[in-house]
Amino acid sequence: MLTEAQSDRLRVVLVATRNPLNIGAAARAMSNFGFHHLRVVNPYAPAFREARSAVGASLVLRRAACFPTVAQATADTTLIVGTTAVRHRHLQHPLRRSEEAARLIRTRLRSANVALLFGSEKFGLSNDDLSHCHWLLHIPTHEENISMNLGQAVAVCLYELIRSGNRVALSPERLASAGEIERITAILLEALEASGFLDLRRVADSEQRIRRLVRRLNLPARDAVIWLGIFRQIVWKLRASEPRPRVG
Amino acid sequence: MLTEAQSDRLRVVLVATRNPLNIGAAARAMSNFGFHHLRVVNPYAPAFREARSAVGASLVLRRAACFPTVAQATADTTLIVGTTAVRHRHLQHPLRRSEEAARLIRTRLRSANVALLFGSEKFGLSNDDLSHCHWLLHIPTHEENISMNLGQAVAVCLYELIRSGNRVALSPERLASAGEIERITAILLEALEASGFLDLRRVADSEQRIRRLVRRLNLPARDAVIWLGIFRQIVWKLRASEPRPRVG
Repeated sequence: MLTEAQSDRLRVVLVATRNPLNIGAAARAMSNFGFHHLRVVNPYAPAFREARSAVGASLVLRRAACFPTVAQATADTTLIVGTTAVRHRHLQHPLRRSEEAARLIRTRLRSANVALLFGSEKFGLSNDDLSHCHWLLHIPTHEENISMNLGQAVAVCLYELIRSGNRVALSPERLASAGEIERITAILLEALEASGFLDLRRVADSEQRIRRLVRRLNLPARDAVIWLGIFRQIVWKLRASEPRPRVG
Repeated sequence: MLTEAQSDRLRVVLVATRNPLNIGAAARAMSNFGFHHLRVVNPYAPAFREARSAVGASLVLRRAACFPTVAQATADTTLIVGTTAVRHRHLQHPLRRSEEAARLIRTRLRSANVALLFGSEKFGLSNDDLSHCHWLLHIPTHEENISMNLGQAVAVCLYELIRSGNRVALSPERLASAGEIERITAILLEALEASGFLDLRRVADSEQRIRRLVRRLNLPARDAVIWLGIFRQIVWKLRASEPRPRVG
């Protein structure tokens, strides 16, 4: 998890992006995860204009800055991380999985600006782009299809930056008390008897079996009330239709 | 991290998706992260046809199965998780952050199939869709823009499932499938109707309430059979005592 100050130090840099939808998607993911600074380098110009002027273009997109070179787009940062799908190409850079990469980026964001670079849809980052990077990040995709859609790759990287490393606590629901469970067991047994269920499956320990069956439900307290009402109504209806002894 | 067997047990279910690009994006993220089973429920039909026949449509997309209802699309699963951007709406379900949700889903995938549901771009999952879910997952997006693009949300969820995180193993009991649970729901509804329970508590969404109630039981497979027998017998007895129309 990042503080607002940390988030504000990240620059997402899209290099040579062709498709305006992808610029829009990157901007949307940034706003989803609380990042503000989108920079585009040498985009296909009509794509950038189209993305920016799209109806409903986000604040992130409208404020996006355009730079002619990677050097200029990253000049105010102290760590430049390139993203790549490739793993075993003669990479000149240290390569880190997204989980570890995010940890290092978060650390740097405490004190300085960081640039996260994404290359073009078709070719990724060029060797010249890569030469500006301190190291590379890769998302652990499956061998059968390592190449991600640009907007999805941006979303996954930003998510990894903001996700909580701590285990989030479970908030268990209040369970029904033993007393409530026993009341349900009793009324269920009555329903089973009145419906003839127990006659068909007569075993010595049927009551114990039913008691265990109800306990295995692990009913939340709020549901115990509902089940009690359901079985009460069923028993009432079953009894109402039984032949009554005549009086007199 | 997931084994191949675990990955093969996940079903990604897109409900009422409108935009073919989003179906394609979901399929692409699935193939990036090694998942195979894409199911679409009631898609905008031309969108589905268009996505499927697109040049370069992936194997995942070409093998995607179309179902008329959520119930049918999830019948072979034992855990159904809905995704939502909403956090403080009067949610009827437990809500878990993606980090914790993924841990629970991974655990279940060791032994049984899991369905992960995504709603339409505009409206998300409907209350009826949600009534099939055991609980809901939300991605921890920023308050200023909580709503993610569908393809990006799918990518983030699947990434969270495959990212490295060493967790302790549990040995879960085999749970009843969604098909079995739906059969219990149907017979219970019949019992509630025959007993007059529903007449007394008539509300617009009573069927959805009952469906959620039954799903919260998390029934083991062996108990599902017993409960089905119990409610069948109760319904039989209730019906047997109903006044029958005279013939002749």
